[in-house]
Amino acid sequence: MQELKDRILKDGVVKPGNILKVDKFLNHQIDVTLLDHVGEAFKERFSDKPINKILTIEASGIGIACIVAQHFGTPVVFAKKNRSTNISDQVYKSTVMSYTQNKNYDIMVSGEFLSPEDHILVVDDFLATGHALEGLIEIIAQAGATLEGIGIVVEKGFQEGGKKIREQGIQLESLAIVEDMSSGEIVFR
Amino acid sequence: MQELKDRILKDGVVKPGNILKVDKFLNHQIDVTLLDHVGEAFKERFSDKPINKILTIEASGIGIACIVAQHFGTPVVFAKKNRSTNISDQVYKSTVMSYTQNKNYDIMVSGEFLSPEDHILVVDDFLATGHALEGLIEIIAQAGATLEGIGIVVEKGFQEGGKKIREQGIQLESLAIVEDMSSGEIVFR
Repeated sequence: MQELKDRILKDGVVKPGNILKVDKFLNHQIDVTLLDHVGEAFKERFSDKPINKILTIEASGIGIACIVAQHFGTPVVFAKKNRSTNISDQVYKSTVMSYTQNKNYDIMVSGEFLSPEDHILVVDDFLATGHALEGLIEIIAQAGATLEGIGIVVEKGFQEGGKKIREQGIQLESLAIVEDMSSGEIVFR
Repeated sequence: MQELKDRILKDGVVKPGNILKVDKFLNHQIDVTLLDHVGEAFKERFSDKPINKILTIEASGIGIACIVAQHFGTPVVFAKKNRSTNISDQVYKSTVMSYTQNKNYDIMVSGEFLSPEDHILVVDDFLATGHALEGLIEIIAQAGATLEGIGIVVEKGFQEGGKKIREQGIQLESLAIVEDMSSGEIVFR
């Protein structure tokens, strides 16, 4: 998606430790017009799938998922982090290893919001190691729902997450794939 | 907003400790069509204000803010919780006492995303004690920006937050105000 790549080149900031900050338009300040075009792009790429729910993970995935959901005419469900207060109800749970924060955290989705009837599009801002996505995939499996595909705004192509997911035969659509930024300059695949 | 009140009566769940769970359409699963109508309602109520930015707080405020922002044609900025990794940059910070979680947390907004030129509409899902809003109001003051108003989806009218904010002369618009739910039945103001 050229508009997104142009924006990353203009406003993205490469930080030490393979960190790409896109705080100006995605992770802190959010350009909702850009997100609308992101939603349009995902709708095009998953137009043949019977998607009835968008699944994401808090916090920065929520805004993207809401605007994407408008294009699919579906509700959003977001996985919550680190909530153990709901354990008396039925919940789907998974543990995620965070690369940027270097610790594990739990994600959960209440049993009422995912079922075997659901056809899920997973949406998130970033894909790097793929650990967060693996957690969501596990939760979808626990619910017996169908994963129809994964839509990512920015994939770090030099980390292993995208490869691992594509090898499972999942339709993974990343709107911008950063192949290299080790010199501080961003190169797309 | 009648559609919202009807939905709260239909899908809201009253829990012990003055907790109103609206997980079915606002805080875990999100009905983006309802949020679109919420955005329309806020646009109507703040139509005379020169709003150029929507400010909210992660996590559950983000989805609402993004869809509201579409109605105002502005970007969203969300305050982040508990991030101390950015202290070398200029940040606006405040400490919030959480009533539901019974602990303090810090919220921060990067200095690049708020300035004296900004005219802010604050948007959030719930208003109860008002502590989170006070934190956002403090951050807006630190930035020298103008607070044009506050848009809330559900106000707990039996807690003191709404009264305190209206007494400051701030335009506070709550689309549903729960006056009482002590018997388990929801009564609107």
